[in-house]
Amino acid sequence: MPPIITMLTDFGDKDGYVGVMKGVMLAIAPQAQLIDLSHQIGPQDVKGAAFVLATAAPFFPAGTTHLIVIDPGVGGSEHRRIAVETPVAHFVAPDNGVLSYALAGLANYAIVELTNPKYRLPSVSTTFHGRDIFSPAAAHLAMGVPFDDLGDRLETIVTVDPPHLHIEQNTIKGEVLSVDHFGNIRTSIRQLTRNADTLSLRPGNFGHPNGAHATDFSANEAQVSIGALTVNGISTTYSSVDVGQPVAFVGSSGGLEIAINRGNAATKFAIRPGQHVTLRFKS
Amino acid sequence: MPPIITMLTDFGDKDGYVGVMKGVMLAIAPQAQLIDLSHQIGPQDVKGAAFVLATAAPFFPAGTTHLIVIDPGVGGSEHRRIAVETPVAHFVAPDNGVLSYALAGLANYAIVELTNPKYRLPSVSTTFHGRDIFSPAAAHLAMGVPFDDLGDRLETIVTVDPPHLHIEQNTIKGEVLSVDHFGNIRTSIRQLTRNADTLSLRPGNFGHPNGAHATDFSANEAQVSIGALTVNGISTTYSSVDVGQPVAFVGSSGGLEIAINRGNAATKFAIRPGQHVTLRFKS
Amino acid sequence: MPPIITMLTDFGDKDGYVGVMKGVMLAIAPQAQLIDLSHQIGPQDVKGAAFVLATAAPFFPAGTTHLIVIDPGVGGSEHRRIAVETPVAHFVAPDNGVLSYALAGLANYAIVELTNPKYRLPSVSTTFHGRDIFSPAAAHLAMGVPFDDLGDRLETIVTVDPPHLHIEQNTIKGEVLSVDHFGNIRTSIRQLTRNADTLSLRPGNFGHPNGAHATDFSANEAQVSIGALTVNGISTTYSSVDVGQPVAFVGSSGGLEIAINRGNAATKFAIRPGQHVTLRFKS
Repeated sequence: MPPIITMLTDFGDKDGYVGVMKGVMLAIAPQAQLIDLSHQIGPQDVKGAAFVLATAAPFFPAGTTHLIVIDPGVGGSEHRRIAVETPVAHFVAPDNGVLSYALAGLANYAIVELTNPKYRLPSVSTTFHGRDIFSPAAAHLAMGVPFDDLGDRLETIVTVDPPHLHIEQNTIKGEVLSVDHFGNIRTSIRQLTRNADTLSLRPGNFGHPNGAHATDFSANEAQVSIGALTVNGISTTYSSVDVGQPVAFVGSSGGLEIAINRGNAATKFAIRPGQHVTLRFKS
Repeated sequence: MPPIITMLTDFGDKDGYVGVMKGVMLAIAPQAQLIDLSHQIGPQDVKGAAFVLATAAPFFPAGTTHLIVIDPGVGGSEHRRIAVETPVAHFVAPDNGVLSYALAGLANYAIVELTNPKYRLPSVSTTFHGRDIFSPAAAHLAMGVPFDDLGDRLETIVTVDPPHLHIEQNTIKGEVLSVDHFGNIRTSIRQLTRNADTLSLRPGNFGHPNGAHATDFSANEAQVSIGALTVNGISTTYSSVDVGQPVAFVGSSGGLEIAINRGNAATKFAIRPGQHVTLRFKS
Repeated sequence: MPPIITMLTDFGDKDGYVGVMKGVMLAIAPQAQLIDLSHQIGPQDVKGAAFVLATAAPFFPAGTTHLIVIDPGVGGSEHRRIAVETPVAHFVAPDNGVLSYALAGLANYAIVELTNPKYRLPSVSTTFHGRDIFSPAAAHLAMGVPFDDLGDRLETIVTVDPPHLHIEQNTIKGEVLSVDHFGNIRTSIRQLTRNADTLSLRPGNFGHPNGAHATDFSANEAQVSIGALTVNGISTTYSSVDVGQPVAFVGSSGGLEIAINRGNAATKFAIRPGQHVTLRFKS
């Protein structure tokens, strides 16, 4: 099986930066399957990247290497450059918290700092560590270089705050995590599963401590509010409501989402990441 | 030879949705060549996707699997999920007509509904069938799973209306099918071939019944009109006219196109898909 | 090792044009690694493409084939279609100067015109030579077809003017070559290396004759001006200055760049490609 390397950056697609990184990796791992997760993360949007990574990584085969280059310091010296080894995947990224959501809940992982010059390009620039440090490290890991050869072990990793989540009697408060290409609103109220009309909020939500207890409630009697928008009931899919109507549902990665059937909910209701979401229910 | 799977969606490129589908497919078909046709189809623009597919599919090697996820019901229950087998390719798509133009004129193909749970992800969400149903089906087909193992045969497939095309004495009326990245205007007057100054309209045009008779006419004496724009004569290429001038020609997939040499015709003349096009000729 | 083919076009990503070219190439080179450098080059921006190619190509393994389709004549008859063989790579492109910067300084390369019909699609359209001529040629080269089988040798190649560069006593004048996805400003003052506080301008700059002598100067005492923007000192990276402040530095491909730490310099200072840049220094 060819090794798989996914890429997640804020580099856009016009300047050839992503292509250059692929060139560097193919020189080391010629057979690799190089998969773009996204290069359209907002400039330096660490939390946005963390969210995409956490929803995508579980669907890749064991042994996949995930390469993430989103860094307010872009190749500067602000953050260490690290690799992380879990039982099923490798991650190569700046140590700025971008791995927080993907690693949340995992007890068992190891961290190294990418200091071994053997696994960098011979000449390292001051501004493009994606090319000179991260890409070679990812390709070497994908080719089976022992994890500890990349550098020295670290004990701790930088984390970003978990998304806002506050669970009270009959109310869960969260935030908008992202607005997708369709204008669908994806929230921090996650780990939801549905069984007939009953929704269950399971423990564990991007590592949020307040997400550690389970709650069951009726989907039909729940109410979701964001800004001026209120939706009664949590449906199963977009087309549970008429075209043009707003709908709340449990999205494909287990999070509460709000959309408009065949419309753009975020544009219509002027909703943006960071905004508060309230889910009221009867217990 | 590694299997080839093409992908055509309206998912955009920022949320990781396409990457996730690739992860699912690589778990099943690790060697596959995964080729993006487009992920920038307008949201739920079934006819736009049908056009891109019909122009692209013929250029892929026999045995290619084409995966299309464009669905106003996005993973909802509105449309069946199907696979189609032709003598040279497989298609995996919602049964909403998106295959209409690619299959037009083909007498010999088989259809199955994707009902076999063995070829889905173990857990199927209500909103991301691209990931949970379509991608596994495409990857399994690409790996050689027998077509009929995917589900039960269907007798008929949903079709969209063929593009507007009306052939009269000395006049062909059609519509604008798409405006491309350069602002070139691509029309439903298709199946054109050129031999010196003679243009021939051959039978068969995305299955249009009115496209079933052949017509020959002089390229130089033809006249093309869309909205306020009139072009005299059908040239062979963009640079047959001066820079900045409009030009009509037979495009690379046999359709009548209108462009501006080194300019953007659609923007300059405010032309959009669906608008009427008239071709007048002397017979 | 699978052959590598990179692609650089102004085709955008919505119409399936790039996918079609990949289909054509996979029919010839089924194992090829097909890598997108960029498809977002401005329409017919030959110099912009030349710059991306020159910065990307050196990072690909020896033996890579680079396919470039940027042509004001888009498949028209304005430019010959050529392939170029260097000691480490092949290039397939229109003969319009797009290879100028990548080949600058190379004494040793061969050129053929792509005239052999054996290495074209059986039917060649008048408007999509990327699909019908360039893609097959690139794929055949990648598969090891002898270079001279593609057509007849040419003695000369079309070149574009090197970017503006004028070196005087204590002043280097150049131009803005591109503005990247982050709004970072990339200039024609290139071939810079840094050793502690000393910057050296080495000979050779996209073949510019005036770039043929070396100059050393102090980074701290240098001053960079573009339009209304003046930056004192040349730093090592973005984060050498406070967030929101402008910074000049030597970029990852050896060129003088100007950015704003965590901001968009081009937008803030309304700077565009072609604008003049002045570097003043003390020698």
